[in-house]
Amino acid sequence: MSHLKVVVTRNIGAAALDILNQQKGLNVVLWDSEDRVVEKDWLDANIKDAHGLLVVFTEKINEELVTKAGPNLKAVSTMSVGVDHVELPVLAKRGIKLGYTPNVLTDAVADISVMLALMASRNVGQAISIAQEGKWPGLPWSPFGFCGPQISTSSAMGLPTPRTITAGFLGFGRIARATLNRLIGFGITHALYTDSGKNTDPDEEHEKKDFSIPVTRAKDFMQVARESDIVFVLTPGGKETYHLVGEEFLQAMKSTAVLINPSRGTVVDSDALAKACREGWIWGAGVDVIEGEPNVGSDHPLIKEPRCVVLPHIGSATTETRTAMARLAAENVVAGVLGQPLPAEYPVSQ
Amino acid sequence: MSHLKVVVTRNIGAAALDILNQQKGLNVVLWDSEDRVVEKDWLDANIKDAHGLLVVFTEKINEELVTKAGPNLKAVSTMSVGVDHVELPVLAKRGIKLGYTPNVLTDAVADISVMLALMASRNVGQAISIAQEGKWPGLPWSPFGFCGPQISTSSAMGLPTPRTITAGFLGFGRIARATLNRLIGFGITHALYTDSGKNTDPDEEHEKKDFSIPVTRAKDFMQVARESDIVFVLTPGGKETYHLVGEEFLQAMKSTAVLINPSRGTVVDSDALAKACREGWIWGAGVDVIEGEPNVGSDHPLIKEPRCVVLPHIGSATTETRTAMARLAAENVVAGVLGQPLPAEYPVSQ
Repeated sequence: MSHLKVVVTRNIGAAALDILNQQKGLNVVLWDSEDRVVEKDWLDANIKDAHGLLVVFTEKINEELVTKAGPNLKAVSTMSVGVDHVELPVLAKRGIKLGYTPNVLTDAVADISVMLALMASRNVGQAISIAQEGKWPGLPWSPFGFCGPQISTSSAMGLPTPRTITAGFLGFGRIARATLNRLIGFGITHALYTDSGKNTDPDEEHEKKDFSIPVTRAKDFMQVARESDIVFVLTPGGKETYHLVGEEFLQAMKSTAVLINPSRGTVVDSDALAKACREGWIWGAGVDVIEGEPNVGSDHPLIKEPRCVVLPHIGSATTETRTAMARLAAENVVAGVLGQPLPAEYPVSQ
Repeated sequence: MSHLKVVVTRNIGAAALDILNQQKGLNVVLWDSEDRVVEKDWLDANIKDAHGLLVVFTEKINEELVTKAGPNLKAVSTMSVGVDHVELPVLAKRGIKLGYTPNVLTDAVADISVMLALMASRNVGQAISIAQEGKWPGLPWSPFGFCGPQISTSSAMGLPTPRTITAGFLGFGRIARATLNRLIGFGITHALYTDSGKNTDPDEEHEKKDFSIPVTRAKDFMQVARESDIVFVLTPGGKETYHLVGEEFLQAMKSTAVLINPSRGTVVDSDALAKACREGWIWGAGVDVIEGEPNVGSDHPLIKEPRCVVLPHIGSATTETRTAMARLAAENVVAGVLGQPLPAEYPVSQ
């Protein structure tokens, strides 16, 4: 059997590269850098006759690239859950399979979702600034200084009636459900969600799951705005969800509520969100993604907004999760070039 | 019946002041500021013949003050769970009762504890700085950029053996147990604790509680250092716990572990913690309290340490919790001046 050529456009770590190198019959051609995007000249020189291609989201998979690879190409594997960088019809018409890495990042992103909800409600962006800028010594204490809404409930507060706290979800796939499972430990009393047929991720299972609190499908997404104390944006990106959260949605939210976006920047209108924070339509926001990222400079309205916590897209960034993503991407490309079923295949024909 | 004089040294909000104002027979004398410490002249002029005194932690309750109040004084009520600002023997010898506000802040601090654990492990201090300083656009992506240890477990990662994650607790009172209850939703697999007889908070109940994961009392506090992936410092302050976490403890911790201190600054040696972060003995740290606070300037070793997230003591700062604390403080002083049992009395004779 002749060698099967697999081109890898990033050093994705020893655990994953070992899977490729230990597979008999593979000729692995590696762009050996962790942090530099593959150079066009290198890729052009090496992609010809490749049977498999393992990429990260910085590579554009389009007609030009696939044509350069030639007719051997059987599988493209991306180390990402998003496939926005891949032109699906180009793969579909040639019968090239696409591998991706869903599910393994569910827990890492759910962790960030809960963390951002806590940070946004507790004014942590401002609190960190005060400490970092040396303003703690002169900070006057007041009974309600820094006080935001509490996302947890307590039986110990001696309130006349128990608080109710509703977590709202735009999109109710795996990450949303993992987020809700975490929030139940904080005493969230109710969940409200909509998926509106907009959740097209083929690997999301929408089975009825038995949570220990009431979980209700909303009549429409504006009900999520009106009734939630925390709104989590956990939809796919794309045209169908573009600016789903805009001025209308944000104005309908409670003034004590927070908006959290750990999914795709395009779902939220950044200008509207900055305005909502600035004018007090909502309490605050926490985002790991922003439309147009990474071109988000220090003059971006969300960066300048003290009530908005901004992270530079680190939702899946844990050693364990990125290792699992890299391993799955390697397993996908191996299966693809061998003509076996991919462990995680994204359907290119829809 | 003659009026009972209650001196209140801070505007602690309408909900609590209403409790005092609606109580018949009270003469409420209020220092009507939310953020300014009561002036000595005002207090000297008003405290004479007070039956009750409602204070916050900025007032020192000592021989001088109690003498100025005179023999009418039956109760001091502090809107805080800590009583470091109160000289207990001074109250004990006069039979003056002390009210405080435990329990109601349990959930707010447990929320911050989990948030700090996530922030410390996920390099959030550095991530926020990059976004704030406009460095996101030029940030190179790499598979393991920003990657820290994941505090949650996942069945979806396809690992050959399931991960185990141990949460360690120095002190295992209400806040520790509320923190653990939240962490179970993240998939923590084991908890290890020590209270070493050092937990002297009279309102902590050390009943055996049935958690859904194994919870083990450690042989000694160094076992917590050696075996935990996250260490939560949730002890009282004071001499018995002074610098309990120092170089020896930190050097025994795992290099992937994080240290979280939401309780009292004096328990942790700040210089040792900064060194531990800087030299990689541990992965990182998250603290809401620092020894010597609020005198923590921008040149403090923990503020300068990128792997340490510092918050300016906002653990109990939520609207709901501070309202509950203020109400309880008001109820304590009312009960005290009326000679009734205090809803939350701190034993002054020990």
